[in-house]
Amino acid sequence: MRICIIGLGAVGQGVAQVFAMKRERIKKDYGLDLNLVAAADSRGAAICGDGLDPRLLLETKRNSGKVANYPEYGVPGISSLEVLDGVEYDCLVEVTPTNIEDGEPARSHMLKAMKNGKSVVTSNKGPLSLFFRELVGTAQNNDVEFKFEASVGGAMPIINFAHETLSGCEIKSVYGILNGTTNYILSRMAKEGSPYYQTLNEAQELGIAETNPSQDVDGIDAACKVVILANSIMKRDVTYKDVDVEGISRITPESIALAQKEGYLIKLIGEASPDSLEVSPRLVREGSPFSVDGTMNVATLKTDLADDVTVVGRGAGSIETASAILSDLISIWKARG
Amino acid sequence: MRICIIGLGAVGQGVAQVFAMKRERIKKDYGLDLNLVAAADSRGAAICGDGLDPRLLLETKRNSGKVANYPEYGVPGISSLEVLDGVEYDCLVEVTPTNIEDGEPARSHMLKAMKNGKSVVTSNKGPLSLFFRELVGTAQNNDVEFKFEASVGGAMPIINFAHETLSGCEIKSVYGILNGTTNYILSRMAKEGSPYYQTLNEAQELGIAETNPSQDVDGIDAACKVVILANSIMKRDVTYKDVDVEGISRITPESIALAQKEGYLIKLIGEASPDSLEVSPRLVREGSPFSVDGTMNVATLKTDLADDVTVVGRGAGSIETASAILSDLISIWKARG
Repeated sequence: MRICIIGLGAVGQGVAQVFAMKRERIKKDYGLDLNLVAAADSRGAAICGDGLDPRLLLETKRNSGKVANYPEYGVPGISSLEVLDGVEYDCLVEVTPTNIEDGEPARSHMLKAMKNGKSVVTSNKGPLSLFFRELVGTAQNNDVEFKFEASVGGAMPIINFAHETLSGCEIKSVYGILNGTTNYILSRMAKEGSPYYQTLNEAQELGIAETNPSQDVDGIDAACKVVILANSIMKRDVTYKDVDVEGISRITPESIALAQKEGYLIKLIGEASPDSLEVSPRLVREGSPFSVDGTMNVATLKTDLADDVTVVGRGAGSIETASAILSDLISIWKARG
Repeated sequence: MRICIIGLGAVGQGVAQVFAMKRERIKKDYGLDLNLVAAADSRGAAICGDGLDPRLLLETKRNSGKVANYPEYGVPGISSLEVLDGVEYDCLVEVTPTNIEDGEPARSHMLKAMKNGKSVVTSNKGPLSLFFRELVGTAQNNDVEFKFEASVGGAMPIINFAHETLSGCEIKSVYGILNGTTNYILSRMAKEGSPYYQTLNEAQELGIAETNPSQDVDGIDAACKVVILANSIMKRDVTYKDVDVEGISRITPESIALAQKEGYLIKLIGEASPDSLEVSPRLVREGSPFSVDGTMNVATLKTDLADDVTVVGRGAGSIETASAILSDLISIWKARG
């Protein structure tokens, strides 16, 4: 399988690293040869039909900041869209930064690849939360595969779990702790009785929250994931604007302490059901799967036959997210025979 | 897909009920027509090439105790093995009671079906924890499918999750709370400070523990599941006798209270790794996925790329277990085209 990666940030580098680590094993286990024929960032690309060396690619990117410095096969200045037109490949891995204003440039990358008959794997929440039906429809019309497990909760594989492993069940609703940063902050506030802004600052110092934490603490990241879950698992047709969102900045240590006295915790919960789309702080029972602390993500599928089934995993991390992309690539390989 | 069920206890009845509920939907969603052509219990069978009515079958079994009383198509006295020889079918659903002495009669049923070229789905821990390699080998030699998700943790789908959803990861070990009865007892002891035998008695009154609770509280049930996880996920070749087993009867409310003071709970944990096979009470951290209470089951897969991924679900219940059998049937249908 000839693969083209666009985006060489944390996730793209994770994918290259996973290719380096696992290529031989995946070949042996599944007969799938992951051949990285092109890698593009915003300043150029490295292109080689016989396959790039993922280790050398990583080294080049980390040392010089541009993949175009890849020895012999670097192409400075070429745009990602030109790469997609000029290279022979089978599957696009789209991992450019998330943009929830207009989903670009990821949306254009994916549509072009699909229209050229290529399968697409992505972790990119932007286009998925704005143009889900367009993307899924374009994939269907062009008879290509489109997989996006990594877009929700990194290494908490909930989408494929619902579709593959629980195929016998009807899913009534999905809800979960879909953002690791807010789970971390709320868990610390519960454990230490510390106020919100102080805890946020500590999380920022640890690199768990970003300098501009709004995406996480205002529930925007979780809302994008709710949209993806609603569209993919609940078969709805919604966008980011349809979600009722409330963040965590007004939660006090006093309210958390009160909840704890009654055996509850406060978590930021995202929910997608046939009649609601919501991100808000909610009480969860201690001793329930939702009492998980730290940066973990949790998602529960309410089913007709199996009752509640829950998956817990790491919501972020470049290798963790890349592992979901790898599972999607293997699943495309299996589906295509 | 023509299906033959052997065993009409709680799980077999659950399967019939699920067929009644979901046949139309499964036909619509997957093009799979679940045609129940035979159902056998220890006293006879009901056989109809055009398909039995699962609702009438359930009614017959519940009212008269024997499927052989099924109107028109009942065959009193016929043995299960005779049914398997005499009926045209595609897939056996083996759900007779678990026997961990010699795995019979389930082992003979499954081997005969496989040798006749039929796929097999089971929830039966007995033969799986005694004759795993023989069964898997026979399935391979006869080019048939063999699925057993329901044998570990009813509606906590860990085996297919490891194989399908986490296909990109290598599994380093599997461990979990694999028995709902012991989780219930230990959770109650933690919450109420009540002693073991009193809590066991209460669980028995509620029907959560059996009159003879040894299978659960001595760790035997969990040990069988550890063997199945070791053989299927860790690719080991072990039997029930290889597991170090310690139950929960010596746990005191005092030791639980001591653990709680330090932020821990005591749970009965089963683990399968390359170098250990064990069931024993262990400390788990509050706030970890293992702090789940009640009768829930939990299993964690330690992976190379995605770190720890955990599934939480109902460990028992006839419909819940039947849902895992249904997912296995759908997966066989997909694999066979």
